Amino acid sequence: MRVGIVGGTGEIGEGMAMRLSRIMDVCVGSRDISKARETCDTCLFSAKEEGLDCSVEGGTNQDVVDGSDLVILAIPFKHVQSTIQGLTGLDEKIVVSPINPMERRDCFVYTPPAEGSAALYLQKILPEGTRICTAFNNIAGNRWRDISSDLTYSVPVCGDDAEAKRIVMDLVDRISLLKAYDAGPLSCSHIIESITPLLLNVARYNRMKDVGIRFV
Amino acid sequence: MRVGIVGGTGEIGEGMAMRLSRIMDVCVGSRDISKARETCDTCLFSAKEEGLDCSVEGGTNQDVVDGSDLVILAIPFKHVQSTIQGLTGLDEKIVVSPINPMERRDCFVYTPPAEGSAALYLQKILPEGTRICTAFNNIAGNRWRDISSDLTYSVPVCGDDAEAKRIVMDLVDRISLLKAYDAGPLSCSHIIESITPLLLNVARYNRMKDVGIRFV
Repeated sequence: MRVGIVGGTGEIGEGMAMRLSRIMDVCVGSRDISKARETCDTCLFSAKEEGLDCSVEGGTNQDVVDGSDLVILAIPFKHVQSTIQGLTGLDEKIVVSPINPMERRDCFVYTPPAEGSAALYLQKILPEGTRICTAFNNIAGNRWRDISSDLTYSVPVCGDDAEAKRIVMDLVDRISLLKAYDAGPLSCSHIIESITPLLLNVARYNRMKDVGIRFV
Repeated sequence: MRVGIVGGTGEIGEGMAMRLSRIMDVCVGSRDISKARETCDTCLFSAKEEGLDCSVEGGTNQDVVDGSDLVILAIPFKHVQSTIQGLTGLDEKIVVSPINPMERRDCFVYTPPAEGSAALYLQKILPEGTRICTAFNNIAGNRWRDISSDLTYSVPVCGDDAEAKRIVMDLVDRISLLKAYDAGPLSCSHIIESITPLLLNVARYNRMKDVGIRFV
């Protein structure tokens, strides 16, 4: 399976690319193709330093969609519409949303669109039949990029297509020490998305860094 | 400090009473005073079996409010209005809400009132100045009652009164291996409340029991 990361040059996207390109074929996309290539260099360099193989390729976001079976949308919520608008072929892919609509006011606040969650908004704007799953929502960019340390989090996965969800859960389980949990239909995504502002608040008010969750 | 448990004869309330009455003075309330006394007997019996002290008293829910510094509302959301309606004096207390408005449909769904959360609904119907905190929302009743095993969960606490929040967090930290985290103002409670239907779905879809969370 080939995994594409749309918006793969942001902090979370690049960290994902670094970890995923060591265990499978990864395609990193950006509006700016030179940035995508920089991220590929970062992946290749860090893998080489440790004497590991790395399979990563850069391109436009459309290249990523065309060349992948599963596409992770590693973009902020405010860029979702403009990014999706220009892309074709997503309806033939599994689309993974780690997107958390939120704002920083006095504290971090979950600010979902009228549809109820980023995931349901995606469902509305993507062609019918696109297999959307929510996953990777609650892992800090810093932790993705700190590739020498294990990720020991639980990853709740939502989605309405059982086969797509199983593929996404298998992907999660291959990364570091992450453990995937079926968290129900796509309509439950708002809970998972809202956990991220909670974790940011917990970090802030308790002087912690990069807080994640584990189901126990 | 004397802790009162309104609705202390339900599964969660009784489990809380069992654990708390071993470490502080507890007052257990119910609409039916004979049920409150049964819960006291359960607490006393289980403590005696292990040769431990236990301080617990039963009464009406109004007795609980009158006799406590901190009142935990261990009641389902659907009973909040009718229970609160009959009670006076809550505005002089710290009121703790472990209440999660939810429904079981195809899966468990978070169903907050128009105010946005059970906590904000409480704030609306209780007298101004009542010091409300959210805590203990994500711990299963079974786990409260299984008193021979440690509770190893993280407990996010929300509230707008810093002193009340500190007192509630100290209370949390005294119970088993629970660890309290400041999770921000009362307006953030909806996230904590919604985690409970998520945990119930995770348990159901992954064949687990009594799932809780830990911040890592």
